[in-house]
Amino acid sequence: MLRSCAARLRTLGAGRGGARPPAGNPGPAQRWFSSEKLSANDRSLPNPSWNKDLRLLFEQFMKKCEDGSWTHMPSYSYKNTLSTQDFTTLIRDGKLPNKHLSQAQLFTRSYEEGLGFEYVMFYNDAENRTICFFQGGPYLQGAPGFLHGGAISTMIDATLGTSAMIAVGIVMTANLNITFKRPIPLGSAVVINSQVDKIEGRKVFVSCNVRSADEKTVYTEATSLFIKLEPGKSLT
Amino acid sequence: MLRSCAARLRTLGAGRGGARPPAGNPGPAQRWFSSEKLSANDRSLPNPSWNKDLRLLFEQFMKKCEDGSWTHMPSYSYKNTLSTQDFTTLIRDGKLPNKHLSQAQLFTRSYEEGLGFEYVMFYNDAENRTICFFQGGPYLQGAPGFLHGGAISTMIDATLGTSAMIAVGIVMTANLNITFKRPIPLGSAVVINSQVDKIEGRKVFVSCNVRSADEKTVYTEATSLFIKLEPGKSLT
Repeated sequence: MLRSCAARLRTLGAGRGGARPPAGNPGPAQRWFSSEKLSANDRSLPNPSWNKDLRLLFEQFMKKCEDGSWTHMPSYSYKNTLSTQDFTTLIRDGKLPNKHLSQAQLFTRSYEEGLGFEYVMFYNDAENRTICFFQGGPYLQGAPGFLHGGAISTMIDATLGTSAMIAVGIVMTANLNITFKRPIPLGSAVVINSQVDKIEGRKVFVSCNVRSADEKTVYTEATSLFIKLEPGKSLT
Repeated sequence: MLRSCAARLRTLGAGRGGARPPAGNPGPAQRWFSSEKLSANDRSLPNPSWNKDLRLLFEQFMKKCEDGSWTHMPSYSYKNTLSTQDFTTLIRDGKLPNKHLSQAQLFTRSYEEGLGFEYVMFYNDAENRTICFFQGGPYLQGAPGFLHGGAISTMIDATLGTSAMIAVGIVMTANLNITFKRPIPLGSAVVINSQVDKIEGRKVFVSCNVRSADEKTVYTEATSLFIKLEPGKSLT
């Protein structure tokens, strides 16, 4: 089951969040995440740090993948090499990156198992929806016992960006507007439910909410704007 | 010089960002960050990973501390113990935190030296301003060679929250509205310049922009709303 879902993703080639690039002849969106140094370790699969809620949500959605309505997104800690060049050609406004690249890791996968961002994403192509199940580890603390607002913002950016990228290709965040309603306890599993609301030219409008695993508590809400990147075109 | 600036901060007792609590009889704002397990290692001081720009900005502002117009904020990776109880009494809407607390670390100080968030903050009491000098390490990568939007959001939240807390005491982020204009190269030093715009009852409105070290490039702009926490009062 798990393999067949991953295979479906490769045919789509969505890449944000460190997804493995598809086989064949990759376009720009696929090359963004391609690298010889990609780890074989898929970080979106359950590990011993996952709590009961996160495991249950994962299993429920893996079942939904069986009829093809939902697709599981694998996720890797990658180190970029050639793909940096691909990216810089897309951002006319960007300065060249520097010597730190050899150590670079995807922010949301840069912690050891269980300490930081534990998450898995699924998407529903027909409904333009991406859902993320996220458990924030002890290194993501803000106020004592609760997630840092920046950690929630990070997973929101990652989920909304995935929705936008599946819709139009390589994108960059232009605006995030996040309303925090209640603090999220460290170690609890939450559901980030996102959908593409509108596409206008290169602009993609995406929104989401963050709820408890039982969906009864709304922790956070967000709207966003992403810009599709195209060679030679400005970001603004 | 460094000691005298830190001493001035202790008389104020501002705590957000892991600052050391003041001596004497602490109020709620001070107790939030108090802990027996506080590290003696001030993470806001230069280390070998800091680039030339970050060192220069630090030295310039340490000089400005000498006449008392600006104050340097020390910063620690803390593990909370008793302070969790203090915090949960302040958020009627919050669920109790869980077993992960024993490992908890402040998100923005949870990486080893040079890999994640390297930053130092200074504040100007007379002008209601807090400034943060920030260098994002290789583990904060989003697009290849550039900072993840979530990492920028995190430092913006931390800086704006510090401004709000200095103004009114313990606060919680209610809204962040962030506009990303240009991507920030990994390893470059940026300046986050924040100011309190307005205070209305328990609401504190704070804004900032994020510029390059030479201030010529505007990378990001943000507005925010923070809510002052008071025992027994709802967050919303």
